[in-house]
Parts: sequence; C-alpha cells; structure tokens
Amino acid sequence: MNKGHSIETINFRSNCPIAKTLDFLGDKWSLLILRDIIFFGAKTYSDFAKSPERIPTNLLSQRLKKLVEGGLLEKKAYQNNPTRYEYLATDKCKTVKPVLLSMKKLGEAIF
Amino acid sequence: MNKGHSIETINFRSNCPIAKTLDFLGDKWSLLILRDIIFFGAKTYSDFAKSPERIPTNLLSQRLKKLVEGGLLEKKAYQNNPTRYEYLATDKCKTVKPVLLSMKKLGEAIF
Repeated sequence: MNKGHSIETINFRSNCPIAKTLDFLGDKWSLLILRDIIFFGAKTYSDFAKSPERIPTNLLSQRLKKLVEGGLLEKKAYQNNPTRYEYLATDKCKTVKPVLLSMKKLGEAIF
Repeated sequence: MNKGHSIETINFRSNCPIAKTLDFLGDKWSLLILRDIIFFGAKTYSDFAKSPERIPTNLLSQRLKKLVEGGLLEKKAYQNNPTRYEYLATDKCKTVKPVLLSMKKLGEAIF
C-alpha cells in the first residue's frame, strides 16, 4: 500500500490538530466522499460513482478504507451472495459536518 | 507553471462549492499557510519558515502566489533595497477561519 493511503502509514508533520486533519483528509477526494455520505445519503460504490466529480474506483476504495480505519466510517455487509457493503457515518464523523459547511461558505465567497 | 499551482489553471471538477474549495485549497500546505497568518500573525517568508511542518520554499512561493491570485492574501512591499514583501489576509480570507477552527475540532476528535 502506498504511503498516506492508510492511517497507520501517515507521517504526521506536527502535533497541530489542523495539520493532522490535513495529513489525514487533505486530499481532493476524502472530504467529497464524506460530503456524499453526510449530505446526500450515499452508502454504496454505485452511490459514490453518481457524483459529478467522478472519483476513480481505485482512489474510492483506498479512501474508504482509510476513512474506516480512521473511525469516521463503518463498513457493513448489507447483502450476501455476492456480499455487498455499505459505508455508514460513525458518531466521530459528525465533527466533519462543520468542516464541510464552512468549506461550502468559503467556496461561495471566493468563486 | 504546473497545473493546479495557479488559480487560473484549476480544472474545477464540478460546481459544488465544497469541491471547488478543495480544488483550490485541498493540498497539504495552503491551509497551513493561512493558519499561520490568521492565528499566529505570520507575514513574511521567515515567519512561515518557523512553522514546525517546514514547508519547502518552492511550495511556499507557489502557494502564496495562488492565495494572492485567489484574493485571500494581499502582497505588500514593506521594505526597499532589497525589496521585501509581506502577505496580509484580505477581507475574503475571513471565511477561512471557520474552516480552520472546525478542522482543529475534527483533529482533536479523531486523533
């Protein structure tokens, strides 16, 4: 696995909680996956695939794995034969919502 | 100039203001530079160099340029012979503070 795609392999640059958040979530996809879960009820790969930004499948799977390891998402089988999984927000994930809402306001202010 | 290092060369992935914010600021350094300006009063290259994350000088100069172009920072000469510049937060930059504060809370919750 490539460095930075798993929470265990993150080299935190400092103890600053903002820097740590960026080390963990500061890529172009993780927060969009969480946006889709928190605001649009996305749960499955096909839900995520519907988003206009079109995340590549390999990046989606890496990011979901990392978000599960980081305790922000829970992976649950919702079907057998074949087994299919859905991704649900954990309680910890609630702290992401204010980040997304403030980013929305920022985006509306600067673009 | 490399793609993504200047606001004019950003290919926005969608019209979502969260995605646009990530297209513009979703790298590991831009928000740390803004953190240093907003919370720690950093203004000059040597101020930024003092931060524990040790941003490489070439990335610092690219990111500052982009933040000026995006209207979040203003570049001002504060000395002549040799000319030295400082970077000041604009009014637009105020919308970044809630993003940083919510990222701080998120970092404290998940790490």
